[in-house]
Amino acid sequence: MAIALPDTHHDFGQTVSTLRAQVDERLGQWLPLAPPQDAIATAMREGTLAPGKRVRPLLLLLTLKDLQQDATAFDAGLDLACALEMVHAASLFLDDMPCMDNAELRRGRPTIHREFGEDVAVLGSVALLSQAFSIAASTASIDASTRNQLVRLLSQATGAQGLVRGQFHDLREGQRARPLEAIAHTNRLKTCPLFTAAVESAALLADASASCTRHLNGFATELGLAFQLLDDLADGLSPQQIGKDSGKDAGKSTVVALLGPEAARQHIEEHLARAEQHLIDAGIGDGHLAQLLEYFCAKPH
Amino acid sequence: MAIALPDTHHDFGQTVSTLRAQVDERLGQWLPLAPPQDAIATAMREGTLAPGKRVRPLLLLLTLKDLQQDATAFDAGLDLACALEMVHAASLFLDDMPCMDNAELRRGRPTIHREFGEDVAVLGSVALLSQAFSIAASTASIDASTRNQLVRLLSQATGAQGLVRGQFHDLREGQRARPLEAIAHTNRLKTCPLFTAAVESAALLADASASCTRHLNGFATELGLAFQLLDDLADGLSPQQIGKDSGKDAGKSTVVALLGPEAARQHIEEHLARAEQHLIDAGIGDGHLAQLLEYFCAKPH
Repeated sequence: MAIALPDTHHDFGQTVSTLRAQVDERLGQWLPLAPPQDAIATAMREGTLAPGKRVRPLLLLLTLKDLQQDATAFDAGLDLACALEMVHAASLFLDDMPCMDNAELRRGRPTIHREFGEDVAVLGSVALLSQAFSIAASTASIDASTRNQLVRLLSQATGAQGLVRGQFHDLREGQRARPLEAIAHTNRLKTCPLFTAAVESAALLADASASCTRHLNGFATELGLAFQLLDDLADGLSPQQIGKDSGKDAGKSTVVALLGPEAARQHIEEHLARAEQHLIDAGIGDGHLAQLLEYFCAKPH
Repeated sequence: MAIALPDTHHDFGQTVSTLRAQVDERLGQWLPLAPPQDAIATAMREGTLAPGKRVRPLLLLLTLKDLQQDATAFDAGLDLACALEMVHAASLFLDDMPCMDNAELRRGRPTIHREFGEDVAVLGSVALLSQAFSIAASTASIDASTRNQLVRLLSQATGAQGLVRGQFHDLREGQRARPLEAIAHTNRLKTCPLFTAAVESAALLADASASCTRHLNGFATELGLAFQLLDDLADGLSPQQIGKDSGKDAGKSTVVALLGPEAARQHIEEHLARAEQHLIDAGIGDGHLAQLLEYFCAKPH
């Protein structure tokens, strides 16, 4: 009689669901209460709590698990995960605006400026950013000096050398025909800052070695590049399938447009393989982050 | 033969000029270099360094002087003053946008979105905010725990309970006929957060007593209300005189519209008198902040 092997993929799916629920619960506590007449608070709550993959929080929390951190560190990590998700939500509010990507759907709902107005999208994003920095400066169980480093990390990921640069690059360079390297550069600027901030925040909390932090950074960068390509591939699907505008990349010089979907999938595989190697080099090749890689590859994006 | 009394007003004008030059020099060091092709960095530099009164930096630095702080604290204060001015500049980028006040002129120049595009205005403001938080978390001569508090102070002044709330209130309530109290409430939300953040940052650096901090907060609030009224009065002047759009308040329920300019001037006097009393109660009734009050009242706004 064959003994049933544990369904590790199913188990990890449970872990992911539990973590997402914990993140959403904590986010609900950090976000302002939203009486109906307060459009800013309502937009902040709805936009941030709308169903999403919560990749950045997952990266941070699973890194903490792989670095053997205890419940106190995990609880502090939940706060920081919320800060990252708020910055991510703020960036989506702005990226969707008419002066940027002019998107109508996001996470299966009307985009924030369509539902609440452009003024609310702008002010709500500023409020989310401000809140995120405050959280990074406030988590009581983290020592004061580390909190300052976390604020700086968040600032780097967000500002003129982070998401801002990526979004601007995408807006101004995305329409031009470009070689593969230039496209990859834009993708790196756009997606990687918060991915690397997630793992580096965890590394800071765990007081990880410089070498471990470097490999975590490499892992997050490769994963971010794979994610951007998966996103470009999804742009060919219908809005019903992906819950946001599709076809926005028409005329944009993406890897998919340049090389076709098959070659893009090949690139994704290569990025994921390099991501896995970074985990092995960091000494956590069989941990939760490795399972996350497998999980995202197996799931339809 | 009459002995010439020292011209204290002239001397204080010199002090103000020197402080502004120091702030602008430090701002120039913090702001990113702006090669011509980098529109974000160019907008950040031009928008922040454009001639302005630098009221928030002056408030912070003069409070430090009145609280007898040494050169090290003053140098740290210069960094924080830059952070405040960056947040202020970021708020102007956004307030001027078509979805907000739709202004064409600011500080005698085309507004940022008119010169560089709305995308640059939005992304530049995010970059300025991020930089401001990083500065508050970074100033080496301030102990780590105080830096955490400064980040939180900046977040409160900026976010959903600070500038964001004031701007939203002004956009949504400003068009309605309202009683004086409601107008004063909007004015308080709009102008006071960064004024109080300036004096409270100085109080934190100087480790001032709770009572002193409370009176400094009261002083900054009254000064902020006076400033908002001066701004409303100036709206009746021509763009050449004030360097920004005039007549934008037509149809808005300002104190000036409700009571007329004479009564508005009377309110300004009352706010300034209360501001002075707060300084006396804080034990610095004959210091630099008191001179600042006199200076701004004597100068044409």
